Amino acid sequence: MRRILVIGIGAGDPDHLTLQAVKAIASADVFFILDKGEEKADLVELRRAILAEHAGDRPYRVVQARDPERDRTAPTPAYSPAVGDWRQRRADICERLIREELAEGERGAFLVWGDPALYDSTIGILDDILARGAVAFDYEVVPGVSSVSALAARHRTGLNQVGRPVRITTGRRLSEGLPADADDVVVMLDAHQAFTRYRDEDLHIFWGAYVGTPDEILISGPLPEVADRIVRTRAEARERKGWIMDTYLLRRE
Amino acid sequence: MRRILVIGIGAGDPDHLTLQAVKAIASADVFFILDKGEEKADLVELRRAILAEHAGDRPYRVVQARDPERDRTAPTPAYSPAVGDWRQRRADICERLIREELAEGERGAFLVWGDPALYDSTIGILDDILARGAVAFDYEVVPGVSSVSALAARHRTGLNQVGRPVRITTGRRLSEGLPADADDVVVMLDAHQAFTRYRDEDLHIFWGAYVGTPDEILISGPLPEVADRIVRTRAEARERKGWIMDTYLLRRE
Repeated sequence: MRRILVIGIGAGDPDHLTLQAVKAIASADVFFILDKGEEKADLVELRRAILAEHAGDRPYRVVQARDPERDRTAPTPAYSPAVGDWRQRRADICERLIREELAEGERGAFLVWGDPALYDSTIGILDDILARGAVAFDYEVVPGVSSVSALAARHRTGLNQVGRPVRITTGRRLSEGLPADADDVVVMLDAHQAFTRYRDEDLHIFWGAYVGTPDEILISGPLPEVADRIVRTRAEARERKGWIMDTYLLRRE
Repeated sequence: MRRILVIGIGAGDPDHLTLQAVKAIASADVFFILDKGEEKADLVELRRAILAEHAGDRPYRVVQARDPERDRTAPTPAYSPAVGDWRQRRADICERLIREELAEGERGAFLVWGDPALYDSTIGILDDILARGAVAFDYEVVPGVSSVSALAARHRTGLNQVGRPVRITTGRRLSEGLPADADDVVVMLDAHQAFTRYRDEDLHIFWGAYVGTPDEILISGPLPEVADRIVRTRAEARERKGWIMDTYLLRRE
């Protein structure tokens, strides 16, 4: 039986790796890397550094494939179909990788940034591939430090207020409105700085980019005071590095 | 300057420790353990095992104190004052530990289950102590694998559906109503099985107790079909071990 390991590798600091992840990496025969293109070459490099450090002395293979481009021009209502199509093409690629690059009895690994359970499609794609029935395997998930936990740790704040809920959502959802019933909202995947819509509200923001890496930038404060600085800093950083990965927590106190 | 490390140690599996946590543990002079009483002796034991494994060959001290009892008999509206009072007594204990048991220039560590940012009071208490001004220190937070990530990993499911939000909340809040605008709700600190209120709804539940430990129990399925089994299993496990730590995800598909 082929075995797939979906391994959370944390939010960017190689020391976010858990001992469980280190052991899983050391046990794998093949690592599948989906390359999102030039702009994220740094991230591919970081993964390779993790392998060099932890994959051990036994031989292992790295199989790199090009991640399909997602149609980001689709208008909002078409979001789900566009994602569905992208996910299907991604499943095609992963199925081929597992069938052609992993022998029976071998262990293949996907290294996932952050935690595999939060805004990552690998688990869903593996279930899709299994449902198709063209290749058999079993798989396990190794949890990781999420970018959400990493952000909160660097800002030395909790995600929730005492006994209160937290919402984790996307920039797209946030731009549709501030949830009435959550005092703490963590926003991921926000390419359009949806927080600027609420810059006049009595909110506190904890923002971070490249959290856990040497390029880390942290800004926090009352949203009306720091919103412009975040927008400017984000644009400069993105220009300088060619890509950005940022997350933030909005808090109503 | 005294330095405090708030170290997330994961959800119960000693291999959830990150490399960063291992290094932080190895660097600490003193470990503060707040003992919640007999019923959680297993957890104190687990922490001691982590220290034995990772605190290294250099000398270190373990200082154990009794966690104040929280007044759980207070009615719902008094929740916040009761918590406030408990937190203040906890801050008194921690302040004394830091002042009396940690010398200038030493590093003291609190080992926190799961991730320090999620439903843990240590960060808030340290801020309270600093605000009082009776003892000076600085502190850093080492993020950990949350019990939420561990639960999702063991069930091999994501926490969110594609592009959709996730809410993390308490049993108390869930018993007040199912959020209308979240399809995925993670519930922590639920002593009263609030999910049973929704046993007739078209929901899927992913439940886990003692996740990541040898005692782990996982049950998932349509809520109407598995609710009774979870209630029964939970009661039996709690009776057998004397305590329980469980979490669940409710999903509307």
